Amino acid sequence: MNVLLTAAYHGARYCGFQVQPNGPSVQAALQDAAQSLLGERPPITGCSRTDAGVHARGFRFTLPLPPDCRIPPARLPDALNAHLPPDIAILDAREVPDDFHPRYTPHTKEYRYRILARRAPDPFQTGLAWHYPRPLNAEKMQAAAREIVGRQDFRSFMAAGSKITDTVRTMTDCRVERQEDSLVLCITGDGFLYNMVRIIAGTLVSLSGEENPGPKMREIIAARDRRAAGPTAPPHGLYLWQVRYAALHEE
Amino acid sequence: MNVLLTAAYHGARYCGFQVQPNGPSVQAALQDAAQSLLGERPPITGCSRTDAGVHARGFRFTLPLPPDCRIPPARLPDALNAHLPPDIAILDAREVPDDFHPRYTPHTKEYRYRILARRAPDPFQTGLAWHYPRPLNAEKMQAAAREIVGRQDFRSFMAAGSKITDTVRTMTDCRVERQEDSLVLCITGDGFLYNMVRIIAGTLVSLSGEENPGPKMREIIAARDRRAAGPTAPPHGLYLWQVRYAALHEE
Repeated sequence: MNVLLTAAYHGARYCGFQVQPNGPSVQAALQDAAQSLLGERPPITGCSRTDAGVHARGFRFTLPLPPDCRIPPARLPDALNAHLPPDIAILDAREVPDDFHPRYTPHTKEYRYRILARRAPDPFQTGLAWHYPRPLNAEKMQAAAREIVGRQDFRSFMAAGSKITDTVRTMTDCRVERQEDSLVLCITGDGFLYNMVRIIAGTLVSLSGEENPGPKMREIIAARDRRAAGPTAPPHGLYLWQVRYAALHEE
Repeated sequence: MNVLLTAAYHGARYCGFQVQPNGPSVQAALQDAAQSLLGERPPITGCSRTDAGVHARGFRFTLPLPPDCRIPPARLPDALNAHLPPDIAILDAREVPDDFHPRYTPHTKEYRYRILARRAPDPFQTGLAWHYPRPLNAEKMQAAAREIVGRQDFRSFMAAGSKITDTVRTMTDCRVERQEDSLVLCITGDGFLYNMVRIIAGTLVSLSGEENPGPKMREIIAARDRRAAGPTAPPHGLYLWQVRYAALHEE
């Protein structure tokens, strides 16, 4: 039986989702927990790679259960959580077809990027938001964010050196919300280029002092050049928030 | 010049606010930062002791500045934050009379106690809420919480062994709020007995399955006996949320 699971994790301790030679990964921690529970080490396939330090509230991955496994999917979250460290939690599990692939099955992803927009640091958001102590104009950032929505070539927001050639993606939502002392970028799309959300976040911050942030953002998109956009925001403000599969009637 | 400061801190690393021989304290960390900034170690007086692991969003303390100090109070938060570890932040500073004492000047305190009330753990609330994975009835907890309001003898909610004899206090607010997956006890009063909020939180949880939680809470209060109340909830769900001084026109 193939099971699709939803996980939340605090990314600070990890070199990212994917197993890496140079440090602990979320994937390896999940495989360790699965091995403790099932007695064998099943392959785990994630919906995405996340970078070192990036967080997730709704990461999806598949876990094929051994044929003799008697644990019903609904019991898997509790059973795995008992073997996981406190910075990873399984929130949900459901059976999916054997050929379901969490990365290649079409889906939309929502990312959020959190900026602590106040002078003083917040001990409860250390490592959970980008602390930006200088003034930010949320309305101007929102005016620029709106221009991201649509089917467009996002080459300007792809990390230099990435080898992807088709850089057209569709963003169905992109907005900046104020939440208490924070500004949160919420962005939903059918796929994301390498570092795309962090570059968009850094660009929105750099456009916060701009006279005409909307037209300026359109120019940056049209440039199709990484050098036209702003800096890459740090990883610890980024959350993979939600992943939805139309084939599973999740949209 | 005497300055009253407001601090937030994540309590996990500390043995409490007050300097202790057996571990790092918030007070010592503040004195270290003040010494780095001012060149001498000023006495720091807190509004309260907090226990090991307890958090604060609005702790108040006084810092008498040396006579030759040229830093205006409004600049102190930034100046001290530059010397503080990331789990402590100064949020505000204001001049107060030399004889102002943050503990003996009459004030009200608001505490909050956070319970993560869902089956799965939350990696972003580890150490920041009491994870209670079994069902809780928020309405019954609220019915019991309401009985705490008023001027009453709260002896039943004082840790056994405390030597305080006057156990009458006035609570002006006590309620249980749902916030996403959490239940938050908000309680405001003119003074609190040792472990009082944690014992009230533990008692509210134990009354969640009770048929008549309001009358049961009245019985517990009337008993004036620690054994009548529920268990002491763990420290890491507790926050000293806000302290207000009428003499400073804060109420």
